[in-house]
Parts: sequence; structure tokens; C-alpha cells
Amino acid sequence: MIIKNHFTSVDDVADLTALLAEVTLEKRKKSSMNLFRHKTVGLLFLNPSLRTRFSTIKAAQNLGAQTISVNMGQGGWALETSDGVVMDGGKPEHIKEAAGVLSAYLDVLAVRSFPELKDRDADYADEFINQLRKYATIPVLSMESATLHPLQSLTDLFTIQERWKKSQKPKVVLTWAPHIKPLPQSVPNSFAQWMNKADVDFHITHPEGFELAEKFVGNANIEYNQQKALENADFVYVKNWSSYQKYGVIGKGLDDWMISQNSLKKAPNANVMHCLPVRRNVVIADDVLDSKQSIVIEQAANRVPAAQAVLKLLLEGSHQ
Amino acid sequence: MIIKNHFTSVDDVADLTALLAEVTLEKRKKSSMNLFRHKTVGLLFLNPSLRTRFSTIKAAQNLGAQTISVNMGQGGWALETSDGVVMDGGKPEHIKEAAGVLSAYLDVLAVRSFPELKDRDADYADEFINQLRKYATIPVLSMESATLHPLQSLTDLFTIQERWKKSQKPKVVLTWAPHIKPLPQSVPNSFAQWMNKADVDFHITHPEGFELAEKFVGNANIEYNQQKALENADFVYVKNWSSYQKYGVIGKGLDDWMISQNSLKKAPNANVMHCLPVRRNVVIADDVLDSKQSIVIEQAANRVPAAQAVLKLLLEGSHQ
Amino acid sequence: MIIKNHFTSVDDVADLTALLAEVTLEKRKKSSMNLFRHKTVGLLFLNPSLRTRFSTIKAAQNLGAQTISVNMGQGGWALETSDGVVMDGGKPEHIKEAAGVLSAYLDVLAVRSFPELKDRDADYADEFINQLRKYATIPVLSMESATLHPLQSLTDLFTIQERWKKSQKPKVVLTWAPHIKPLPQSVPNSFAQWMNKADVDFHITHPEGFELAEKFVGNANIEYNQQKALENADFVYVKNWSSYQKYGVIGKGLDDWMISQNSLKKAPNANVMHCLPVRRNVVIADDVLDSKQSIVIEQAANRVPAAQAVLKLLLEGSHQ
Repeated sequence: MIIKNHFTSVDDVADLTALLAEVTLEKRKKSSMNLFRHKTVGLLFLNPSLRTRFSTIKAAQNLGAQTISVNMGQGGWALETSDGVVMDGGKPEHIKEAAGVLSAYLDVLAVRSFPELKDRDADYADEFINQLRKYATIPVLSMESATLHPLQSLTDLFTIQERWKKSQKPKVVLTWAPHIKPLPQSVPNSFAQWMNKADVDFHITHPEGFELAEKFVGNANIEYNQQKALENADFVYVKNWSSYQKYGVIGKGLDDWMISQNSLKKAPNANVMHCLPVRRNVVIADDVLDSKQSIVIEQAANRVPAAQAVLKLLLEGSHQ
Repeated sequence: MIIKNHFTSVDDVADLTALLAEVTLEKRKKSSMNLFRHKTVGLLFLNPSLRTRFSTIKAAQNLGAQTISVNMGQGGWALETSDGVVMDGGKPEHIKEAAGVLSAYLDVLAVRSFPELKDRDADYADEFINQLRKYATIPVLSMESATLHPLQSLTDLFTIQERWKKSQKPKVVLTWAPHIKPLPQSVPNSFAQWMNKADVDFHITHPEGFELAEKFVGNANIEYNQQKALENADFVYVKNWSSYQKYGVIGKGLDDWMISQNSLKKAPNANVMHCLPVRRNVVIADDVLDSKQSIVIEQAANRVPAAQAVLKLLLEGSHQ
Repeated sequence: MIIKNHFTSVDDVADLTALLAEVTLEKRKKSSMNLFRHKTVGLLFLNPSLRTRFSTIKAAQNLGAQTISVNMGQGGWALETSDGVVMDGGKPEHIKEAAGVLSAYLDVLAVRSFPELKDRDADYADEFINQLRKYATIPVLSMESATLHPLQSLTDLFTIQERWKKSQKPKVVLTWAPHIKPLPQSVPNSFAQWMNKADVDFHITHPEGFELAEKFVGNANIEYNQQKALENADFVYVKNWSSYQKYGVIGKGLDDWMISQNSLKKAPNANVMHCLPVRRNVVIADDVLDSKQSIVIEQAANRVPAAQAVLKLLLEGSHQ
């Protein structure tokens, strides 16, 4: 067993080494069109998606599976997630029924649901994805939840492993970067969670006040001085996130946290990663994104074999 | 011939027994992937859809057919349905052209179009679906029109027949239930229409002022006392609808029409049905939905073989 | 080589005669389902689409290819197209990254992007499609850009050629017609561009002030008197466009430019074409659209083999 019942966090992975080997395998063979012709992957998007949408659908198609996508709120509707309530408000359907019904139509239920960034406790309960796990009778696949983004993190770890040829552990630095709008902590939370399980020397750097939740930080080294943290880094993972402490607040006067060639002076061999989309010259400067140090497109391309490996495992019932 | 040219009401069914047998057959074999690989089912959604979308697409995929979906108004545009008008308003395309063109691209045209609930005569003319029937040269499949929902009703009748093992007719009661918003009469209209053709003892109960259109009620027994109507019911079909008499008006002070275990005291063996989505503790109480008496998920699951049988018949040209 | 790297204007066509022969071939065989089962066509819609959406997807399906569609702004997001900017505005992703990533997931990238009709220079730079051509490493297929609509024009030319059996050149007249809203010049620009490459006697008629850009008009005969222009026409291509001179302005008091049987008195054998959607009794009268002279449905139906030929050539790498 490589993946347990669902795939919504690294905790669903029973054998990480075997999972990474599956990604390599899927990347090599690319497609196996007749494998799952009778299976259907449903994709529910409660939020916009470009990369995740295309890569997950492409992965399913490579496996020969059918897909059905719906943008909830546009083509669908809002779901009630609390139990026992009188449903006289804006949500016409309970997740119990939706999960039950979709389980009858589909073989895997993939879902994207962002946080509201207003009520931290509500967001961190990750109720939407957890209620789906509870009520669905088919595997639930997170395409990014309120707190985590495991398909991205699997891709990130695979990309690091594929690139790294030396015997010593790579120095991996997750660095906060500026942004103009409050963003979720899902990508950094999830990246930290996966790095803690991986064979890497893991560091996080961010301004004071941007500490991530402890349960995700794990054994990472925290360094508030970005320059110092980046020294001799092999992989620099750039990402903005809004404050977890002062929930949803964005930083001000922190523009010098943008990653440019100047930031990388003491990390001349660093591979620069970002999950995309990236605001150029706000988060990362053109002089990095347009240089050979940037591996963001290669990283994005790896979303397909990563999703393919996870979907294959979920579809073939490795979880049973 | 089992289905005539189109499938937009029970009147398109030439042989109901044979149609139900086809549903059983499709449910058993589940999929026949190479049957219609060169055929394409187009799905036009003028209104939101979750169950109907997933089940109809899944049914098409099980038959090996291709699908193309579009949410009109989002990805498409509004269509003019009146003949002879000067089209200088908000509708840039006439249904004549749209039907003609889509007939050239597709093999079946599935359409969902709700009523406005403002002008009864306009809604009950069901102009959108009827103009499509008139101008399309391929079969038109209703995924719910302004007045009817035949795919739902076929599913409902199939579910009742599949569940019912006794020799006498089952007592089937369609009961009105409360809701917070004005809903169409499509589901109850259509259910009544199909029950009139089926071998059941059919009753309808609702508050005064919620009488359905006579042409759909047919030979149903009308009973204004819900408790009395539900006595010894074998199947209780719960559904809200807004008034047909005072068109589009919702009831007030009618909360005790909600179906709970209390309502079912004299119907201890009743199977409770609802087309979903259902507002819990407004339409039906948790104590019913979470009990074994509720068959709403099983009912929803049957949407796939029902759609599959209809699509198969339309695609293989049983109508020719 | 029939098509060069991309297909965003007639200038990408290396051999027009061979391309038209391919359309004939595709129309005849209709589908070849196993040809491109491992290939995926991505469709990005920045604007609404009915015909183009259905015909392009159907064409891909006929070739056995997979498709993934997304309505940007709904399911996706706005893309920055200018280089070197600080991306602190409403566009969270640069077209460089989007093109790079989509090139990794897809085999052909089809895009629809209308003009804003406010800034002529900006629209006529056709930046969105041209930046995609620059940064994508896969073929870019225009499903209508700010200035051109080559899939429509290929269809139009094919339709004319297929209909025309005489040895002399057909007289083809593109005529301006009234409309209630400002429309792009894309369809007439593109039609003019293709007619200039075709073996036809090409005329354009429009009110003064509605001259198209010279580079697209080419060697067409311009005639401001519609009646005179239409005399003995074999094909009348009807289309409204807003002014290119007074950019985006619509005409007033020009209702008599509508095409009716009255307009065609001196062109009794003319085939009337329009790309659709058409506002009846504003652009073209019922008495023409409902007559045998109208070939608009046949023309629209030809969108499938035209798209199929282009997709086939792009997918099989005729461009390499």
C-alpha cells in the first residue's frame, strides 16, 4: 500500500519512496491509454484553476480515464458542511448528499477549495475536504484545500529529487516573498510538511510575524535573515503567504524580500522554484525568472506525472 | 420503437415497459465503451446542474460517446425563441440558427432550461425546448425544462419498480413540503405524469392553493390532509413547489408540512424519495434523511442507468 | 509543408490549395478516432463561444484527440502580456509562464481573444495571440483574435469552392450590414485576407467611414453603393463591423444596409453567407435567412472539417 484511502495530505502517504518511484515511472511511460477507460474522475473547482486543472485532467487522460469538471457556484452550487443545521440560508445542498451522490457517479473525487482568510479556526478545520473524506465512499483527491496542496508538494519533492545528483542532502530553503494580496498558507504549509518527510536539509526564512503553524513547520530551521538563510542553498522555494498569526494580513515595507539576482549572490548554484502563478518583479524579478537558475516551468511540467501517479494508485484501489 | 423522436416528456415514450427494461439492462452491464465512439452528445446548461450534469455525462461516457458541455450565458449566449421579431435586444442569436448549427455538430442535444416563475403562460409554453424540438434535426433530450423533468421521473419510476417486490400496486404519495424560495413545478408535474402511466396507486397531498396543473395531475387522488395521505404509504415522494394558481408564490406558516419521523408514524415501511438537492430540516428532517427509510442516494445513483438507456435509444436511432 | 508553425492568419498557410484539399478529405472521412489518442488540444476562451467551441472540440474528437477547455476569467485568470512590468495590478500571471506551462501539458493551444474596441493600436498589435506564438513551444491555433478569424475564413473559402462549379471566377461581395452594438473587424479583415489569396472576383461594399485596414483589403474592389456592388453576385458575405477609422463607432441611419430579398433583386442567384450568430431583421431579414439562397447552416457545418484539417496538420507536425 502506497497511498491510503484518500490523498489530501502527506499523512495519506504510506510509502513516500514508492510514491516517488511511481512518479518517475509515469513520467517515463507518459500514458497508458486503456488502463482506466471505464473509470471517471470528477473535478470540483470551488476556485479558479489553470495549472491544476490542465495537469490533473491531462494526467487522467494519460491513464485512459474519463473526466467531468464543474466550476461550483457557476455550474453547480454552494454546499453546506455543518451537521444538524436548519438549511434555510444560501446553501441549498448538504455535503452529505453531494458526497453520497458523487460517490455513486465517480471513481475519484478531486476537489479544490481555498480558505476565506477571515476566520482562522474555520479555515484550519479544512471542513470542506474533511467532510468529503467522511461522507464520500470513493477516494478524495485534494487539488488544494484551505490549508494544504499535496499534489503540488509531491511535484516539488519529485522535482528536487530528480534534479539532485549529489550524495549529501540538498539545502532547501523556503523563502517568504512579497505580494499585493493576502494569499493562503496552503502551499508553504504543505511544502514544509513534505520536506519534513524528505531526506533534505530544510530551512524556512520569513519576516517576523509570518511564522507558519507549528504542526507544519516541524523540524525546519527558522532564520529571519533572508540573506543568511539563502547562503549556499541548492533549492530556493519562493512563495508569498499572508500572516498566520495576524490571520490573513499581508506585509508592508517588505519589498526587499523579493528574490532577484541580488538575493542569490551567495547561492550561485541555487535552483529557484515557485508553484506559479508568479507576479514578476513583485515576488521574483525578471533577472531570475528569465535565467537558467529558474526551474519553474520544469517544476510545473512535473505536475502531470505527479498527478498521474496519484490518480493511478487511487484508481487501481491500492488503498483497499 | 421505444422512444419517439425526442425525449422531453413521457409522451415521447412509445413503450414504457420496454424503456424500464432497458434501464435495468444498462444498470447491469454498466458500460459498453465502444458502442458510440463516433457520436457526440452536446449538453447546454442554461441553469446550474450537479446531479444531472454528472449523471448524463457519465451515462454518455459509459456508452463510449463523446460529450461537449457549455454553460450558456457564461460560455455561450442567450437565444431568441420568438419568430419574426426584430432582434435588436439582448439576445444575439435565434434558436433557429442555433438548433440548425448544433444539429450539424452533434448527435443528441441535451438541454436544461428552468422557468422564470413570473409569467405562467410563458413558462408553460415551454418555448425553449419546444422550439429546439421544432428546429433541431437531431434528438432533443430534456435535462429539465420549464415544466417537466422526464429523466428524473424515469429514474423515479425505475427506483420504485426495482424496490417493489409485492404483487399488489404500491401506494405512492407525492407530498408538498416547505422551502424558502420559489421552486418550479417541473419535478412534481413530471412525476405525476409518469405515475399516471405506471401501475401504482397514486396520491398527491399539498396545502390548499398548491394544486398542480390538471393536465399533469391526471387520475391522482388529491388529499389536503398530509397525515391521512401518508397512511400506509409504500413510497413517499417529497418535493416543494411554488404555487401554480398564484404563480410562483411560496407558502407561509406551512412548516409542519416538513417530513420528519413524526410525519411517518402511520407509514412505518415507507421509502422516502427526493430528487435532491434537499434542504435538511426545512424540507426533510435529519431523522428521516439519516434513517434507512431514505432512499435518496440510491435514487440519485439510478440517474446514470436511466440516462444511459435514453441516450442509447436516442443514439442508436430507435426513433427512426 | 501546408501550415507553418502556428495557425493565426492566412500567412501561416504555405500551400492554400493543399489545405483546401485536406478539408475536403476530412469532410469525407469524418473521423479517424485512433489517430491522436495521446494528443491533447487545450482551448482557452477569453470570450464567449458557441459554434467555435463545439466545432473545434468536435473536430478534435473526430481525430481521436483529447480536449481540455477553460473559460478564462471564470475558471482561469487574466494574463499579463507586456514584458518587463511590475505585476502589481489585476493580472496575476504572465503569458510567458502560462505559455511555457501549457506547452508542457498540451499538443496544440487554441485561443479565443476579442478586441476591446477602445484602443485601436493596442487591438491591432494582437498582443495576446502574438505573445503566445512567441512563448509557446507548441502550435498556437487562433479561434478568433483581436483582428482575425482564420478558421472562419478557411471555412468560408472552402464553402465557396465546394459550391462553385463554373469555370469562371465567382463574384464574391463582402457587404457591411447594420448592427446594434460595436463589433470587431476580425471576420471581415480575415475574410478579405483569404479572398485576396483565392481565385475569386472580390468586392467590398460598405458605407463611407467603414473602410477596413488597407493591409487586409488588398486588391478588393471597393464600392460604396451596395445595390451596385451586389449586381450579379454569386456569393454575398454579410457582416457588420464597427468603424476602423473612428475606432469602434457603429453607424446610425444605415438600416437600409440590411440584406433582404429587396437587396438581392439584381443578384437572383447569390448564395448568402454569414458567420453567425446573426440578428434576424437587423442584419439579414427573415425572407433571406429562411430562403434557399441562405447557406449559413451549411457554412457553419463546414467549421468541423475545416478545424479538423487544421488540427490534423498541426498535430501531425506538418510544421516541423
